[in-house]
Amino acid sequence: MRELLERVAAGDCSPAAAESRLRGYATGDGGRFDAARTSRTGIPEGILADGKTTAEIVALALDAVDATGHALVTRLDDETADAIDRAVGDEVPDATVDHDARARTVVVHASDYDPPTLDATVGVVTAGTSDAIPAGETAVVAGEMGATIDRVDDVGVAGIHRLFDQLDRIRESDVLVVAAGREGALPTVTAGLVDAPVIGLPVSNGYGHAGEGEAALDGMLQSCTPLSVVNIDAGFVAGAQAGLIARAIDRARTE
Amino acid sequence: MRELLERVAAGDCSPAAAESRLRGYATGDGGRFDAARTSRTGIPEGILADGKTTAEIVALALDAVDATGHALVTRLDDETADAIDRAVGDEVPDATVDHDARARTVVVHASDYDPPTLDATVGVVTAGTSDAIPAGETAVVAGEMGATIDRVDDVGVAGIHRLFDQLDRIRESDVLVVAAGREGALPTVTAGLVDAPVIGLPVSNGYGHAGEGEAALDGMLQSCTPLSVVNIDAGFVAGAQAGLIARAIDRARTE
Amino acid sequence: MRELLERVAAGDCSPAAAESRLRGYATGDGGRFDAARTSRTGIPEGILADGKTTAEIVALALDAVDATGHALVTRLDDETADAIDRAVGDEVPDATVDHDARARTVVVHASDYDPPTLDATVGVVTAGTSDAIPAGETAVVAGEMGATIDRVDDVGVAGIHRLFDQLDRIRESDVLVVAAGREGALPTVTAGLVDAPVIGLPVSNGYGHAGEGEAALDGMLQSCTPLSVVNIDAGFVAGAQAGLIARAIDRARTE
Amino acid sequence: MRELLERVAAGDCSPAAAESRLRGYATGDGGRFDAARTSRTGIPEGILADGKTTAEIVALALDAVDATGHALVTRLDDETADAIDRAVGDEVPDATVDHDARARTVVVHASDYDPPTLDATVGVVTAGTSDAIPAGETAVVAGEMGATIDRVDDVGVAGIHRLFDQLDRIRESDVLVVAAGREGALPTVTAGLVDAPVIGLPVSNGYGHAGEGEAALDGMLQSCTPLSVVNIDAGFVAGAQAGLIARAIDRARTE
Amino acid sequence: MRELLERVAAGDCSPAAAESRLRGYATGDGGRFDAARTSRTGIPEGILADGKTTAEIVALALDAVDATGHALVTRLDDETADAIDRAVGDEVPDATVDHDARARTVVVHASDYDPPTLDATVGVVTAGTSDAIPAGETAVVAGEMGATIDRVDDVGVAGIHRLFDQLDRIRESDVLVVAAGREGALPTVTAGLVDAPVIGLPVSNGYGHAGEGEAALDGMLQSCTPLSVVNIDAGFVAGAQAGLIARAIDRARTE
Amino acid sequence: MRELLERVAAGDCSPAAAESRLRGYATGDGGRFDAARTSRTGIPEGILADGKTTAEIVALALDAVDATGHALVTRLDDETADAIDRAVGDEVPDATVDHDARARTVVVHASDYDPPTLDATVGVVTAGTSDAIPAGETAVVAGEMGATIDRVDDVGVAGIHRLFDQLDRIRESDVLVVAAGREGALPTVTAGLVDAPVIGLPVSNGYGHAGEGEAALDGMLQSCTPLSVVNIDAGFVAGAQAGLIARAIDRARTE
Amino acid sequence: MRELLERVAAGDCSPAAAESRLRGYATGDGGRFDAARTSRTGIPEGILADGKTTAEIVALALDAVDATGHALVTRLDDETADAIDRAVGDEVPDATVDHDARARTVVVHASDYDPPTLDATVGVVTAGTSDAIPAGETAVVAGEMGATIDRVDDVGVAGIHRLFDQLDRIRESDVLVVAAGREGALPTVTAGLVDAPVIGLPVSNGYGHAGEGEAALDGMLQSCTPLSVVNIDAGFVAGAQAGLIARAIDRARTE
Amino acid sequence: MRELLERVAAGDCSPAAAESRLRGYATGDGGRFDAARTSRTGIPEGILADGKTTAEIVALALDAVDATGHALVTRLDDETADAIDRAVGDEVPDATVDHDARARTVVVHASDYDPPTLDATVGVVTAGTSDAIPAGETAVVAGEMGATIDRVDDVGVAGIHRLFDQLDRIRESDVLVVAAGREGALPTVTAGLVDAPVIGLPVSNGYGHAGEGEAALDGMLQSCTPLSVVNIDAGFVAGAQAGLIARAIDRARTE
Repeated sequence: MRELLERVAAGDCSPAAAESRLRGYATGDGGRFDAARTSRTGIPEGILADGKTTAEIVALALDAVDATGHALVTRLDDETADAIDRAVGDEVPDATVDHDARARTVVVHASDYDPPTLDATVGVVTAGTSDAIPAGETAVVAGEMGATIDRVDDVGVAGIHRLFDQLDRIRESDVLVVAAGREGALPTVTAGLVDAPVIGLPVSNGYGHAGEGEAALDGMLQSCTPLSVVNIDAGFVAGAQAGLIARAIDRARTE
Repeated sequence: MRELLERVAAGDCSPAAAESRLRGYATGDGGRFDAARTSRTGIPEGILADGKTTAEIVALALDAVDATGHALVTRLDDETADAIDRAVGDEVPDATVDHDARARTVVVHASDYDPPTLDATVGVVTAGTSDAIPAGETAVVAGEMGATIDRVDDVGVAGIHRLFDQLDRIRESDVLVVAAGREGALPTVTAGLVDAPVIGLPVSNGYGHAGEGEAALDGMLQSCTPLSVVNIDAGFVAGAQAGLIARAIDRARTE
Repeated sequence: MRELLERVAAGDCSPAAAESRLRGYATGDGGRFDAARTSRTGIPEGILADGKTTAEIVALALDAVDATGHALVTRLDDETADAIDRAVGDEVPDATVDHDARARTVVVHASDYDPPTLDATVGVVTAGTSDAIPAGETAVVAGEMGATIDRVDDVGVAGIHRLFDQLDRIRESDVLVVAAGREGALPTVTAGLVDAPVIGLPVSNGYGHAGEGEAALDGMLQSCTPLSVVNIDAGFVAGAQAGLIARAIDRARTE
Repeated sequence: MRELLERVAAGDCSPAAAESRLRGYATGDGGRFDAARTSRTGIPEGILADGKTTAEIVALALDAVDATGHALVTRLDDETADAIDRAVGDEVPDATVDHDARARTVVVHASDYDPPTLDATVGVVTAGTSDAIPAGETAVVAGEMGATIDRVDDVGVAGIHRLFDQLDRIRESDVLVVAAGREGALPTVTAGLVDAPVIGLPVSNGYGHAGEGEAALDGMLQSCTPLSVVNIDAGFVAGAQAGLIARAIDRARTE
Repeated sequence: MRELLERVAAGDCSPAAAESRLRGYATGDGGRFDAARTSRTGIPEGILADGKTTAEIVALALDAVDATGHALVTRLDDETADAIDRAVGDEVPDATVDHDARARTVVVHASDYDPPTLDATVGVVTAGTSDAIPAGETAVVAGEMGATIDRVDDVGVAGIHRLFDQLDRIRESDVLVVAAGREGALPTVTAGLVDAPVIGLPVSNGYGHAGEGEAALDGMLQSCTPLSVVNIDAGFVAGAQAGLIARAIDRARTE
Repeated sequence: MRELLERVAAGDCSPAAAESRLRGYATGDGGRFDAARTSRTGIPEGILADGKTTAEIVALALDAVDATGHALVTRLDDETADAIDRAVGDEVPDATVDHDARARTVVVHASDYDPPTLDATVGVVTAGTSDAIPAGETAVVAGEMGATIDRVDDVGVAGIHRLFDQLDRIRESDVLVVAAGREGALPTVTAGLVDAPVIGLPVSNGYGHAGEGEAALDGMLQSCTPLSVVNIDAGFVAGAQAGLIARAIDRARTE
Repeated sequence: MRELLERVAAGDCSPAAAESRLRGYATGDGGRFDAARTSRTGIPEGILADGKTTAEIVALALDAVDATGHALVTRLDDETADAIDRAVGDEVPDATVDHDARARTVVVHASDYDPPTLDATVGVVTAGTSDAIPAGETAVVAGEMGATIDRVDDVGVAGIHRLFDQLDRIRESDVLVVAAGREGALPTVTAGLVDAPVIGLPVSNGYGHAGEGEAALDGMLQSCTPLSVVNIDAGFVAGAQAGLIARAIDRARTE
Repeated sequence: MRELLERVAAGDCSPAAAESRLRGYATGDGGRFDAARTSRTGIPEGILADGKTTAEIVALALDAVDATGHALVTRLDDETADAIDRAVGDEVPDATVDHDARARTVVVHASDYDPPTLDATVGVVTAGTSDAIPAGETAVVAGEMGATIDRVDDVGVAGIHRLFDQLDRIRESDVLVVAAGREGALPTVTAGLVDAPVIGLPVSNGYGHAGEGEAALDGMLQSCTPLSVVNIDAGFVAGAQAGLIARAIDRARTE
């Protein structure tokens, strides 16, 4: 800031231009408060389809592609995915549309979009098939941030040998997101067997008392092995957090 | 009942005596409602020391020994245990007093008390040292009902190899009570590895959200392997339930 | 394991075959982690119809019959039951399909499926008609595990004489699952009148504060007579737990 | 009101006097809002000892005796009861002091206090000894309102024959307050066996999940037999409500 | 009972008949456990329409009319009410069908049904129009039990003069059910202004935190004037409890 | 009141008229209990569309216009707004109908309705687009009370520079309503930066644990800067409260 | 800011000084982020005595007097108040120390402290004596901010005439803080009778379900008359909010 | 495993030795389940002082030093810290004892203990002084794991300029743990301003509704910027998780 003020004093910068820069210092894009943070961090702006009309979702997706070169839509149904596919085909014909029906996500990349790549792996581990939607969101978000994704599915603690069979592979990830519903014990057991940081992702299955993911969240918060946790079904948040850790590792690798 | 009424009709039983018997049928000791159930089932009347004065506890224990030949006091401190020991020494000098300081229990047997014995084993498994009090209550209650007790301690899921090291032994019990606090995952993992029925016993350790055993209870109710559950710290209830199952097995063995 | 290794040393077993067997020891069918546990314990894999399409349910049921000789579907509607019936008729014409409309379950047995039988009785007791679905699940699961099922319905505590009228019969079961909604007092009252272990099954009826089965669960956890409990509407878990106890008794009887 | 205004118009009443009367009409003692309600309904002003110093309690009790001829103190300890006894002995030597140590209440009657009497009986039924304090408050409050009190203790549902043994007696009360902790099933069972209105009084015993009386309150609110309920440990409220019903019956009897 | 047994001894009653009577003593109609309680207390068996098909509701209503001469259906819609009307017209053409659309109730009386009448008035007071359904249930149930019903509507505390305008009328009831949602203050304010016992009926309106009647229930349980309370929307229970009080008053009046 | 009574004494007012006036004093329009409060405070009677039929809403709106010259309907859909528009066009053709589709409100003003105006500004600040409905209700209610409304949208704390960019403008309001969902931090941050009183308005977005606005409400109640708060989604209440503060300021300005 | 930059350009202000001022603009005392806000708003920094030692509290109070000329300590006991009195007597002998034992607060004013005065009145209304502590905090905080305080005590809704007797006085305040525990109905009733904005202050009395102020908070959030609310026992927050409103009114009066 | 089995087949390894190795493969120290994990990960075994006697704590600390060369005790008071200091002085005189009174921790290093060092920085940020204990635990744990710790205190959102003044420094950490109580907004605001992964640490201050850290936890789970979270006051867990991330970064830097 001193440099700028010296230039004002020297007449090299008009007070009006300096005001603009200094307001920017306080609040603008390239400065302190970093309006450009979203594009720089590479955390994609997720478009949550739940509660929006198909027309709204399509419009938001096209806007996102137009503004940033890519779009990520979560929790959509097959009809909306088809509608996005058609609209992108009409409006941005060179773009690619990637629909993951199990994860209920769509990713659009403009032809000139250059996705980030990170030299780090995020392991996404699930206890069972009912964890597919939030775990899928995690994988898509961390993947869009550039991380290599390694999915390991169906290793719930009811048959714990399935976990042990995959343990060597699980240990190769730099950071792990472990999804589980019901009693949510899988992240606790996994974190006792690996050295990487584990993020617990509680999933809203289970009925009755403490159902809808509450028991899983409670158990992960109380875990006897160290974990950090995100909210129930917050696959997007888990993916973004894992992506940030992956990027920190990537930076360290490429320093 | 018909037989009794025939006898009234035949004059072999006075109406007054029959009334007495029939009231008994409705409510009395040897009849339908079974006032003698406690002694017959062998579930000891537990004296919960919490919230009582030492004098009250000592008096209740002596009464129990007097009436039933034995007494069981739970959640007492060392001073009260000593007071019971002295009082029994004064009043019932031949009786034995067994104080388990970790379980915070005292058991008194009169010299002529003939404790039941069952041909069945109750395994009592704990995740860590903080489970000692309720697990100790479970062991004492099931033991007083006559079951053989097999304690397996400190096999929590944070270091899951400890559980596997004890698995062959755990599999030898006829019924298991598995105690755990924090996230309470041990009963879920254990029930996936054994064939015996598992009763989950949540323990009130852990702080913060869902602490004091709530997360453990929630997780056991949501367990992805079949469990039945008792309330937080309800070691007495778990021991009584395991004892009833052990007795059913004993009866089947001795039929 | 030593035996197998001796055979490898003796050349009677190739290292590759031994590796396969020993991986099995760690994780496989006949070994330590017991992948075959499901078939051996006889707890059927339940297919929960809620939240699945009819096509998915039919496919899962056919798969289960193909793999294990039988299938159990819970919480389905009449249309899905009919669809299963037709599909089984087409694909496995000799199989039997048993639809219990009140319990909302379907059981399929292939013609060559040899169901287990246990020399033990599971009593399934209900307070009222609104307990039919979870109690029906309990009966089906324990029945598929081989237990004899004795249903005693509509003995809720509002008219307690109905319970007393059935008490002699209730006392003949080896283990009891007692279902109740609203205030859930029936398991507490029943457990004070019988010697068998009682598993409380809270049912999600009741509205307003502590409705949807929460009051029933709370009351069973706080019961002044010893009970173990499963989660609200967890008829499947209660049936599996009762079936495990029944099998332990059966083994003792047949030793 | 018209009569008064006619008198103002006729000059028989000054506007100032009329204003005074009419303000009274809106808010005063003998009028619409009935400041004298407390003495007329006979609900004693209870002095809750919890959280007050002995000096404060003694002063409040003496004030109450001075103002109304009687006093009722609840939840006090023995020392405070003794202090009241001494102070009353000093200040109001003819007054009687009635200390119920189990109920933790003290009642003081001035020598010229004429307690109300109602031709109606309030039954106060308890499940166990731990219900003594709130049930004692109920009995004292309804008794001070003039009702005949019939206490029936220790008829909890764990041994249901105890309830049946007392049923004829219980049926003779005009209104029942039934206290219970733990699962709180006694009011539900009782209300199915009697014709009188039953008020459920949940008691704060029980530990773990839904302990401290919550399960009992929940169960009474969900009761499958019609009950009305007061808050946990609200023995004073139950006694006042039962006393109001008793007085309505007394009025009908004496019409 | 003695009398009966004397008659058996005297041969005036066969043992078989006595057994039948005595079983009845334990469980039957005219005896101890009082199977006929429902018809004698006059609490109608309510048929809760929620969650049942129209065909089921119609069948249950016809059965009730056939067995008891009357039927009460709650929480039904207009279509179901019409269906009942038509079915009764076909099957029991002389019966009367009374449909209260605001309360969502239907009452059917067979031509030879002699409804009870009580010399006592139940006041049903509501805070606003959204209390109509549970308050309507209360009125119908207490009315079917024979009480005179006095409805006072729309006297919520937001405009407290409305309550004062109706106070003289409210004071004429023997027992009051006061319904309120949102903060539920009306029963508290009313109970400070009348001498009759007040039963608070919380209603499930209100959104956000503590909505759906929870704040109203909480406030009534904490009321600074003595109230008893029923569960949220439990208009049926409030009506039955008020009816029982009305009958006790009626009996006292007619002694 | 004295004045009126003097006039009665003087014969200038008949007793009957005085009675009418004085009942009014107690309960009527111009007097103590102030039935006319609604029109005088200018808080419009809101018609909550949720749970009502279109026909009911239209009728209520026409009634309100007829009685008070204006109407405010909240939480309606576009179809209902159109229906109101048509009905007003038919019945009150000179009236204006103002439909805010994002806020889901309709305001109707009769041609002769003279809306209040206040010399005070209510700032309505939102964190994001999902706050539009309750914030819109706040703006409409405070606007109908006469306040100048200044909307500042999309200044959520995720990109805090957006808030700072608008801070000078936000500081110009006399009172602020700050709406936020999710973690609800915006009112806390805002109240640390301005001198005006801030009312926090939690919004029911967010899923999982503490979703549906509960976390936002909790955070505002615990705010480390002084706030007052309304219930989740209670935009109407926030607007009325802000309007009352604005009117107090307006009165002070115009004294 | 432009003005400052013009002065830098003109050489009237050095770049270093400007940097200092502009950092201040971003974060400093007299600028945008307003570090001096506390002294300017006049909200005193409260020293919460709970959980601190007497020595810590005395030191903090002396520091506050030293830095700002005054100090406010809340929730202290008499001993700590005496200790502050002695310490101030030793260190700042000319200062005044004002101890309100019922409110458990101490206020210290240095001899040269010039307290603010506002031309506005804050009414502080309580339901009963148990509201004294938080209501006392409210009065002290708003009083220190300069408002005239009008306390109206013991007007709880159990005897609603007490409220009406004080209504004319209550109506004279510019803003009201209404404290209540138990069911918390007083703010709702009051807000229906006055035109000033009402802030509800829930108080942590009451036991059992929804005790400790939860029912009062819930009821105020659900109030059928418009209120804003602060957290349970948050008398400090209510006083600060009322003080901010009073200051806005004062400014409008003195414009 | 194949290699080992080939060696058995070749006679290079006895079956007994192979069994031992293969059991180890399943469960042993140096094998798959990794009993040595604790020492290798460098997460110190924390000794939680709460609920233990001074003698127990001293013994555990000496044992830890003996076994691992270091010890970490959390949540101890000054007396216990002194006792450890004396005992270590007596028993392990060359060891260093580091007592952090604000964090309530003691760390002991034997003279030959070689603490790990990581080329990575963990920033520990607090909102206020009441966050000192859990934040101190975080710093000690991550520090013992080898990370450089950068503490930034007292940057709560009530005066948000304090955060901005420290922002450049905060941005230099590789991973951040941000502690906050009350509404817990600081992690949300911070995560919007930095690129490093942020772990939210809720602190148990705050009273009333959602006090004791619940509001802070809820808000962090609902945060509108991506965060991961640990339980309330779980400073140990946050430190271990941050330490694991720091070690992953350190490994990447040193590859």
